Amino acid sequence: MHIELVTIGNELLLGFTVDTNGAEIARALSSLGVDVVRRTAVPDRAESIAAAVAESLRRTGAVLTTGGLGPTRDDISKTVVAELYGAPLEFDPTVWSDIVARFARVQRSPAVSNRSQAEVPRGATVLRNQWGTAPGLWLEGPLGLTIMLPGVPSEMRKLLELEVAPRLAARASGAVVRSLVVRTTAIAESALAERMGEIEREIMPLSLAYLPGIEGVDLRVTAWGLPADEADRRLRAAADLMAERAGEHAYGEGDSDLAAVLLERARRARLSLGTAESCTGGLVGGRITEVPGSSDVFAGGVVCYSNHLKTELLGVPPELIAGQGAVSEAVARAMAEGARARIGVDVAVSVTGIAGPSGGTEEKPVGTVWFAVASPGQTESRRVVFLGSRKEIRERAAQTALFLVNRRLIAD
Amino acid sequence: MHIELVTIGNELLLGFTVDTNGAEIARALSSLGVDVVRRTAVPDRAESIAAAVAESLRRTGAVLTTGGLGPTRDDISKTVVAELYGAPLEFDPTVWSDIVARFARVQRSPAVSNRSQAEVPRGATVLRNQWGTAPGLWLEGPLGLTIMLPGVPSEMRKLLELEVAPRLAARASGAVVRSLVVRTTAIAESALAERMGEIEREIMPLSLAYLPGIEGVDLRVTAWGLPADEADRRLRAAADLMAERAGEHAYGEGDSDLAAVLLERARRARLSLGTAESCTGGLVGGRITEVPGSSDVFAGGVVCYSNHLKTELLGVPPELIAGQGAVSEAVARAMAEGARARIGVDVAVSVTGIAGPSGGTEEKPVGTVWFAVASPGQTESRRVVFLGSRKEIRERAAQTALFLVNRRLIAD
Repeated sequence: MHIELVTIGNELLLGFTVDTNGAEIARALSSLGVDVVRRTAVPDRAESIAAAVAESLRRTGAVLTTGGLGPTRDDISKTVVAELYGAPLEFDPTVWSDIVARFARVQRSPAVSNRSQAEVPRGATVLRNQWGTAPGLWLEGPLGLTIMLPGVPSEMRKLLELEVAPRLAARASGAVVRSLVVRTTAIAESALAERMGEIEREIMPLSLAYLPGIEGVDLRVTAWGLPADEADRRLRAAADLMAERAGEHAYGEGDSDLAAVLLERARRARLSLGTAESCTGGLVGGRITEVPGSSDVFAGGVVCYSNHLKTELLGVPPELIAGQGAVSEAVARAMAEGARARIGVDVAVSVTGIAGPSGGTEEKPVGTVWFAVASPGQTESRRVVFLGSRKEIRERAAQTALFLVNRRLIAD
Repeated sequence: MHIELVTIGNELLLGFTVDTNGAEIARALSSLGVDVVRRTAVPDRAESIAAAVAESLRRTGAVLTTGGLGPTRDDISKTVVAELYGAPLEFDPTVWSDIVARFARVQRSPAVSNRSQAEVPRGATVLRNQWGTAPGLWLEGPLGLTIMLPGVPSEMRKLLELEVAPRLAARASGAVVRSLVVRTTAIAESALAERMGEIEREIMPLSLAYLPGIEGVDLRVTAWGLPADEADRRLRAAADLMAERAGEHAYGEGDSDLAAVLLERARRARLSLGTAESCTGGLVGGRITEVPGSSDVFAGGVVCYSNHLKTELLGVPPELIAGQGAVSEAVARAMAEGARARIGVDVAVSVTGIAGPSGGTEEKPVGTVWFAVASPGQTESRRVVFLGSRKEIRERAAQTALFLVNRRLIAD
């Protein structure tokens, strides 16, 4: 089964509202085996709504709308769709008593304008809304299927889950659209594509998308319209193959967080962690402590933004900083080793770099970052030059610091 | 001038990506006086892209696309649009040298797949992209105007601002939709509304929206369809009035950052800053060092997640922690004073709290956070109980720490 989404509201066209409803509905429908083939956003204008809904029905035979079901004058979706279907609006006493009851619960009475919310196109099924005043509607006719949901996210979500999903599941072919995401980091999209080789051919009929982001490149493999069992089996095999080819760069699936992955690994190995941050200014510690329960592994860290503090709190020799510069392999190593000793942990990671926008030189351009990981018996270091804004450089550097710690833990 | 947006990517139809680009572009175009009349999202399929772009051109005569310009096999937007315009793709040596130069900066070479990114439809204007490998394109022909931008938000943003906006502004009408945002923090929406009084009547015909978020409540005032001059004048007056009524809670406008505001204030007062973080784990330092040039004010900080480190690095007496608990006024004050002395700064802020999801008690529920600000001659402390998830509690706590430092600096 295919469907299109039409989201209605001036705010969407002005960009004041980000269309999170559309994403949420698409996710829910895909997982049921209903293929969302197009999303359209139109303003609260009768001709725009009518055109979008009619085109969607002509193309796909099914459309789900959100928005424009409220009590105010700019809420015209229902009127427009009723006209399209040639179904007159009729007052529905059950809907009205739901609305009255809802107001009674907060000791108020509905306004005159709410009365229009109890009007229903003849022949439509009402999707009763206990969480707000606008009921959902389910219209079928020669034009096809139109499902109308309110735009308030909490009401939309409830009606989608309780009223729409069960009805659509019954019509879904059993052929689902499901995805699996393999998360990779510290490797460029093009280098990753080279590692993947002929994967797109090998995993057919699944499709593959590269999703580059601040934390790395996500590989999303999707099964389009396969039986659920077969989809899951093929996705599993494809994800395993991709993870194998990505090697140490693959760290998890779905919305897996590298900080959580490495904390779990350190916990199992009974190793404690600490940080010494210069250019990231606390972001690495922030990432680690975002994970609930991180305190049994992470002791803490030092944000040594000034050179003075690198010496004072971590014992980095001032002559090393003067001789090699604060952004250097020697200083990164001394920071990590100093943090390991002073914080009293098994593994410490250091970050020192030039996040920009100024401060770069020909030899050390903006984006140059030195990392070191000090662990029992050895200290490893690495230099990376990151591209992007100050924010991107810092977030990529924090992610790379986590990558290097995780790699160290894997090697142990 | 009217335009439609077409965003391209399977992830939008699967709902795994929220279409933030669409909102951002719509906002930028509205403020120029260009009316966005429809937004469409389609998958990475040639026939879907071709249909959506062709329909938009037929309806509106102008379309802006994002996505599908990358180097991988699923990036087909350019090929599809070139075909629609009957313009063969031609290798552009200037674009290729931009790509080569971009890779050279990080001492790498482009992959074979990047070469396709240097192909340009004949007759198109290249919108050079210094922030990524995919250039934007500007095509005009009998079909109308098609503007193509990469889907990576940072690249899209730069090209929109520097290449697209100036070209479109020349064609726009005089009536703009513009907004101004006054940012407030550390005050609840209802308390803020009380301070605002009868403002909605006073600022007519402008409209006001309250936008609560993690960093506080933003007040957005909007002028609808006024001449640019009048819109700007009325918005200025309204914003000044709102800031005055919000008092110490108003810290800036637009996407103003509280960390940048307080850094500038500290810089003028020649005061240095330091941090001592427990439950925020580095987020306060991360916020401060996000601001370019923060190093001349911010010396650094200590992330003392473990109690041992609070004593070791900040000199908090262990008996204080044992007696009062790590989340207490006494420990917050000792942390701030310890940080001020050990880091050697004029002003130090401390944060110690229970971010959850576990660890709360009846007396100190999850969300309880103690703050202290130590400055020459005095230490102030404050307790706040935040609501929300672990992530929300931590981010609100970091913002409140910045608010307290800023307020201290204002008072001096």
